Amino acid sequence: MTAVTRARLEALDRADPLRSFRAQFDLPPGVIYLDGNSLGALPARARERIRHVVEKEWGEGLIRSWEDAGWIGMPQRTGDKLARLIGAGVGEVVAADSTSVNLFKALSVAVRANPGRRLIVSERANFPTDLHVVQGLVTQLGGAVELLLAEGSNEGVEKCLAEHGGRAVAVLLTHVHYTTSRMYDMRRITEAAHRAGALMIWDLSHSTGVVPVDLHACDADFAVGCGYKHLNGGPGAPAFIYVARRLQEKLTQPISGWMGDARPFDFRGEYEPAKGISRYLSGTPPVIGMAALEASVEVILEAPMAEIRRKSVALCDAFIELMDTRCAGQGFELVSPREGTWRGSHLSYRHGSAYPMMQSLIAGGVIGDCRPPDLMRFGFAPLYTRYVDTWDAVARIAETALQGRKKK
Amino acid sequence: MTAVTRARLEALDRADPLRSFRAQFDLPPGVIYLDGNSLGALPARARERIRHVVEKEWGEGLIRSWEDAGWIGMPQRTGDKLARLIGAGVGEVVAADSTSVNLFKALSVAVRANPGRRLIVSERANFPTDLHVVQGLVTQLGGAVELLLAEGSNEGVEKCLAEHGGRAVAVLLTHVHYTTSRMYDMRRITEAAHRAGALMIWDLSHSTGVVPVDLHACDADFAVGCGYKHLNGGPGAPAFIYVARRLQEKLTQPISGWMGDARPFDFRGEYEPAKGISRYLSGTPPVIGMAALEASVEVILEAPMAEIRRKSVALCDAFIELMDTRCAGQGFELVSPREGTWRGSHLSYRHGSAYPMMQSLIAGGVIGDCRPPDLMRFGFAPLYTRYVDTWDAVARIAETALQGRKKK
Repeated sequence: MTAVTRARLEALDRADPLRSFRAQFDLPPGVIYLDGNSLGALPARARERIRHVVEKEWGEGLIRSWEDAGWIGMPQRTGDKLARLIGAGVGEVVAADSTSVNLFKALSVAVRANPGRRLIVSERANFPTDLHVVQGLVTQLGGAVELLLAEGSNEGVEKCLAEHGGRAVAVLLTHVHYTTSRMYDMRRITEAAHRAGALMIWDLSHSTGVVPVDLHACDADFAVGCGYKHLNGGPGAPAFIYVARRLQEKLTQPISGWMGDARPFDFRGEYEPAKGISRYLSGTPPVIGMAALEASVEVILEAPMAEIRRKSVALCDAFIELMDTRCAGQGFELVSPREGTWRGSHLSYRHGSAYPMMQSLIAGGVIGDCRPPDLMRFGFAPLYTRYVDTWDAVARIAETALQGRKKK
Repeated sequence: MTAVTRARLEALDRADPLRSFRAQFDLPPGVIYLDGNSLGALPARARERIRHVVEKEWGEGLIRSWEDAGWIGMPQRTGDKLARLIGAGVGEVVAADSTSVNLFKALSVAVRANPGRRLIVSERANFPTDLHVVQGLVTQLGGAVELLLAEGSNEGVEKCLAEHGGRAVAVLLTHVHYTTSRMYDMRRITEAAHRAGALMIWDLSHSTGVVPVDLHACDADFAVGCGYKHLNGGPGAPAFIYVARRLQEKLTQPISGWMGDARPFDFRGEYEPAKGISRYLSGTPPVIGMAALEASVEVILEAPMAEIRRKSVALCDAFIELMDTRCAGQGFELVSPREGTWRGSHLSYRHGSAYPMMQSLIAGGVIGDCRPPDLMRFGFAPLYTRYVDTWDAVARIAETALQGRKKK
């Protein structure tokens, strides 16, 4: 690889097949935003969709908009759009609730679908809410199931399943790790889970929208994911749930609210689960937030996923190379995979002054975030992050690190 | 009571202490909106709050707004505002999730709090999602609990509790009935539940914001409610949950997502329930929808609840009297209580042509709704429904009924 220069990065931006997308986002001037993995930037289309939904559909249409503006079909319609980003079929995904609530549904169904087994296998350093939700279910079911934590790697999970898989109800893993960015081999791990007789639940929160995912190809059973990271659906956007068609009607999920009923507007007391994925709905859909998510997903669908992925890897590669050369000896340790193949679209660096340094960077307009105990995290959103942003960000990081040393 | 005339209703509007509130709502011209009990109208303050949250806080502030714009405290802050409408204290209510999801939490905790008992008592004609969620929990717990349906009246519930109360885990009732508008005596029923050793869970979906509620006075254990009806929080607005302070830390709810953890930003795998009501949170709060709800509740808090209630009863009384006089002999049967004391803020009429007649009314700009099998429902929102609206609406109803008869 030739040395990275700003001119070369500018040339990459000029040649970038995704370059027109940046103008579709509202980005504050003077900011290099490297935290789209935590909260994606605002797509102009989402801004305008929200305005329309609020002012026209709610303000003028009022109750009529449930039919006239298609609110009632929004969870399924948005789900079908999301399905195209994760290799799922029409009628296999709904947008609904939060990731935590959807995980609770998937885990509850898995436990009932796989009786006689008692282990829910996950990863020791999984995103906390995944483990928390398992713990809540364990308590609710009076200890009928328990949580078993594997080491976080393809090999670690396989080893755990080789030893304990015969008692495993389900395997719950996050595809791209929220700090290290390490990515599981979904096909390999799903096969290992199935070989052991366990159901596979993928949390796609840190992959959807920026990493190609093919749930059909790996024959996953359930997946959930977050709407507000790389999907750019807005703060606290609705999440989604995928259930493989072959499993959808075998069971019902426990939070059986009226929107999961076969005919909610018949107002019958006896719950009759809807056909297909709709039974994974619970309460009334959060229309305004979901409208933003739907609009945001539409923007992503206009970009070829292969180009998104190519640029994501290239942005991370450029950032790593720049950090290697310009911040050498400044105490940064890359904890993400150096090679792009099994890495998501963010990078984490360990640094002894991670928190104060990130505060300085944010104050100066380079926005990343920190994760305990000492990680600085930078996310790259191919639709609005430019190649030159990696140069300018690393320049600031180098300056900030030097200033930090001078103060000492 | 002197006969209602339009002039007299105009005079009531002129003298109405709430009359200034109507201008704070976006209402489409030419529409008489009598469905605020299903979806409240758009408060201008909610419209502007959403715009600010989207364009400034999300678009410009980006991830920084979790702290800088106070997003992280929104569920508790909105909950504290809601608390003032339902006689709860600071720290006893959070805005979160949907009514269905919150019901699932309350029921799950009640079952664990009251071991050795197996009946969840509700009302035969309760709003379907309440019964559906009980059914989902019954299935999940493998039949460890079951649903028992009482007749829907104070006496019916008391009779049921007198017979079966010794086995009752909890009593789950909707304060104001979604069709009949019949209102339970919360204090009387809560006392009966407690006497039987059961916990009391109130669904306040059809009361909050328009009927005075005092959870402390009746010593309720749990309550849930909907944000998009009389709270005007927008389509699919977040719901809320109340847990009496004395019960909050006894147990944990099962959907133990990271926002219910004591220190979510420590990112620990082991769930440690937050102190107080915050442990009833699950996933990331839906910021945009909750901002609308918070703004809408602020508007309601500026109106004295006693005036809201007084006008609500007066609007219903006027509507009933007009229907009695102007639609006599047209086949309408009032199924709501004729006397205001134990009635919410909507009225239902049985009519053999309910559905086609409501379609005609809506086409002509008088918007109510229908509920099976043959009910026409009209809601009255004291902050934006005028007294003259009752006159004009009944005039259209009378015309429509006459036209319907001519067609036959």
